Amino acid sequence: MKSDFDALMQKRNLDAIVIFGNAEHNPPMYYFTGGGHVSHATLIKKRGEQAVLFHNDMERDEAARSGLKLSPYTKYDGDELLKKANQDFLLANALRCELMFKDLGLSKGRVGVYGTYDVSMVFGWLSHLQKLCPEIEFVGEPREESIFMRAMETKDESEVERIRAMGKVTTDVVAKVAEYLTSREVNSDEVLLKEDGTPLTVGDMHSKIRLWVSEHGAELPSGFIFAIGRDAGVPHSAGNPADLMKLGQTIVFDIYPAEAGGGYYYDFTRTWSLGYATPEAQELFDQVKEIYDRLMDNFDLNAPFKDYHRMVCEYYESKGHKTPLNTRAPVEGYVHSLGHGVGLNIHERPFSSLQIGDDHRLAPGVVVTSEPGLYYPEKGMGFRIEDTIWVRPDGKVEILADYPYDFLLPMKKWKK
Amino acid sequence: MKSDFDALMQKRNLDAIVIFGNAEHNPPMYYFTGGGHVSHATLIKKRGEQAVLFHNDMERDEAARSGLKLSPYTKYDGDELLKKANQDFLLANALRCELMFKDLGLSKGRVGVYGTYDVSMVFGWLSHLQKLCPEIEFVGEPREESIFMRAMETKDESEVERIRAMGKVTTDVVAKVAEYLTSREVNSDEVLLKEDGTPLTVGDMHSKIRLWVSEHGAELPSGFIFAIGRDAGVPHSAGNPADLMKLGQTIVFDIYPAEAGGGYYYDFTRTWSLGYATPEAQELFDQVKEIYDRLMDNFDLNAPFKDYHRMVCEYYESKGHKTPLNTRAPVEGYVHSLGHGVGLNIHERPFSSLQIGDDHRLAPGVVVTSEPGLYYPEKGMGFRIEDTIWVRPDGKVEILADYPYDFLLPMKKWKK
Repeated sequence: MKSDFDALMQKRNLDAIVIFGNAEHNPPMYYFTGGGHVSHATLIKKRGEQAVLFHNDMERDEAARSGLKLSPYTKYDGDELLKKANQDFLLANALRCELMFKDLGLSKGRVGVYGTYDVSMVFGWLSHLQKLCPEIEFVGEPREESIFMRAMETKDESEVERIRAMGKVTTDVVAKVAEYLTSREVNSDEVLLKEDGTPLTVGDMHSKIRLWVSEHGAELPSGFIFAIGRDAGVPHSAGNPADLMKLGQTIVFDIYPAEAGGGYYYDFTRTWSLGYATPEAQELFDQVKEIYDRLMDNFDLNAPFKDYHRMVCEYYESKGHKTPLNTRAPVEGYVHSLGHGVGLNIHERPFSSLQIGDDHRLAPGVVVTSEPGLYYPEKGMGFRIEDTIWVRPDGKVEILADYPYDFLLPMKKWKK
Repeated sequence: MKSDFDALMQKRNLDAIVIFGNAEHNPPMYYFTGGGHVSHATLIKKRGEQAVLFHNDMERDEAARSGLKLSPYTKYDGDELLKKANQDFLLANALRCELMFKDLGLSKGRVGVYGTYDVSMVFGWLSHLQKLCPEIEFVGEPREESIFMRAMETKDESEVERIRAMGKVTTDVVAKVAEYLTSREVNSDEVLLKEDGTPLTVGDMHSKIRLWVSEHGAELPSGFIFAIGRDAGVPHSAGNPADLMKLGQTIVFDIYPAEAGGGYYYDFTRTWSLGYATPEAQELFDQVKEIYDRLMDNFDLNAPFKDYHRMVCEYYESKGHKTPLNTRAPVEGYVHSLGHGVGLNIHERPFSSLQIGDDHRLAPGVVVTSEPGLYYPEKGMGFRIEDTIWVRPDGKVEILADYPYDFLLPMKKWKK
């Protein structure tokens, strides 16, 4: 949690952190600023002190909404710095950064650097800055283990409520999609038809899903998944827009809306077959649902997350599927890991792959996905069930947005 | 243009470039891949050779849509690398990168690094990688001058058509907003009313604008501006959601939709006053419109962009306003520069501030904004007119989406 930040800095021996970039779509910056239209900013926080946000003067009102201590860039004479740097933009920026450090009394120690930003520019700045500030050691951290991933790993209640609100948006949209699909007329090739009688495509559904999420004022990353048949069998295929919506094929619908401006996400998947399901598909779906339920019954406070991934692998192996436990990088069977943390990042700590450490735990306050799946692209089918769950401080595990798990969705105007 | 890329690499003495990150919302990666759901990828291009996209196996279908030469990460044994790196993720990634370089025969020379990505991680990788590959010099470039900003600066016709299409989305939405506003009932305090008789707020308009852009399948960064009164006088204020929509106040509406998934942008601003305009506001608007028109009449092929920014400063000075020419960082009067290139970045080359080089020119193929404005937050008013214009290869300057410039929008159901 954010309140742990200074302690985490202490533990990592970080004297200060610097975050580069915009407030939007930049989780570390958003974590401190709360988002808003603050672009090309720099946030510096010394351990035990308040963070200071350096910003463009034009964006002073937006910057002020962060509630942080502010310092406009115009405090430093840009023309002068460029002259001193012989018109070298990278050096001029490094010189400004040196002045900012000086103003904050930061002249030595370990300084972590963060942000989703232009890596070319930051690498160039830091190369210069290292020479200007030889007593500072700049530190990059691996994504999975960074101080932000650690701080963000456990959520306070206000964060959980924001994720829960995105969950409500998610299930409202999913219900609307199900209602739309099951209300279609169907032609003699078992293809669903639009209101105008033409075939309904995956691309049509992509547009509708985008629109319906927007109606809630939320954002939807364009890689969300609504895929049918073979594409449903490839976990990260967004779906081929030209594919026709047909009965009796598996549909994987994986949707992860976020608060507008790069805020908190929700992550959710259901698998459907419209009108009827083939016996083979039904059997595979039932296996996914069985292990999904078994997981929900077994999640234990503070247990390593990967133990549950291993449980899924073992269950699927007993059913004859390939998994990461018996096959390196399988492309059919169970091909990914069980889940991941969800927050300002769609994928964050804790992670669950077999390679991950035991410190990725179901600690009180984590919000994770549970998403076992099975994938058979050559058979033209794929399956995944996913909910976002909160490990409550009291140790109970709570699904943050309820939605039915039905695989077979009956068509209102069609009978087999 | 993309076809200039190898020549630009030659000119900068770059033997290769590496791009890190996702295909979405990452202009360098998008430029080569065309977007799509390809996450945490690495693209390496040696000078004179085809780019190779290293990607997660799960995203092979999406990666294949790029048309690039592909190489899945699973080619390299992640467990083995982590073991060799003593579980240090950054080092393991650097070791993988070293293998990727080896496979491409890249062992020395100057290598530019790019991408909008996790700067902490990339800085950490490069620190290790530099030790593993001592004969490679890694190069960061300033944003304004990077090889991507240079290549992207001039557009081919297919890029211009995509920007034009976003222009059509923009003007369709702007027309819808104008129609909605002017059709409102107005109460005795000159406040516009919603259908249900309650006051219409800036926040209501933000929601509608977001929704109407989504209906076109486009994206709208959440920092878009629809601001009234004082907030219209602060160029980057998005507008205060609680403000009421009232007659006779300046409204600045600055909207920059993009193709979904982080594609091409359009940038556009109009200033309105509903029902009536105060004489002071009308006079200031007329000045903005006069210099806007004068610019359109004067833009010359290959002229330095900043010459026109200076022209605006001089005109406004003659009318008694502060400008960047006579005041450092003014907060009223003309407080920004004239415009910027538009493409996969909302702000890209060429730029127009007084500090910028003469090589930021109106070269054939550039797409830039022209956006003179005047800002008087203390008077509760601001003004800006902005279009996105294409400097055609034949030297003509073309506005990519036409829309009327009217300041005073008459209300259909209200008379003064």
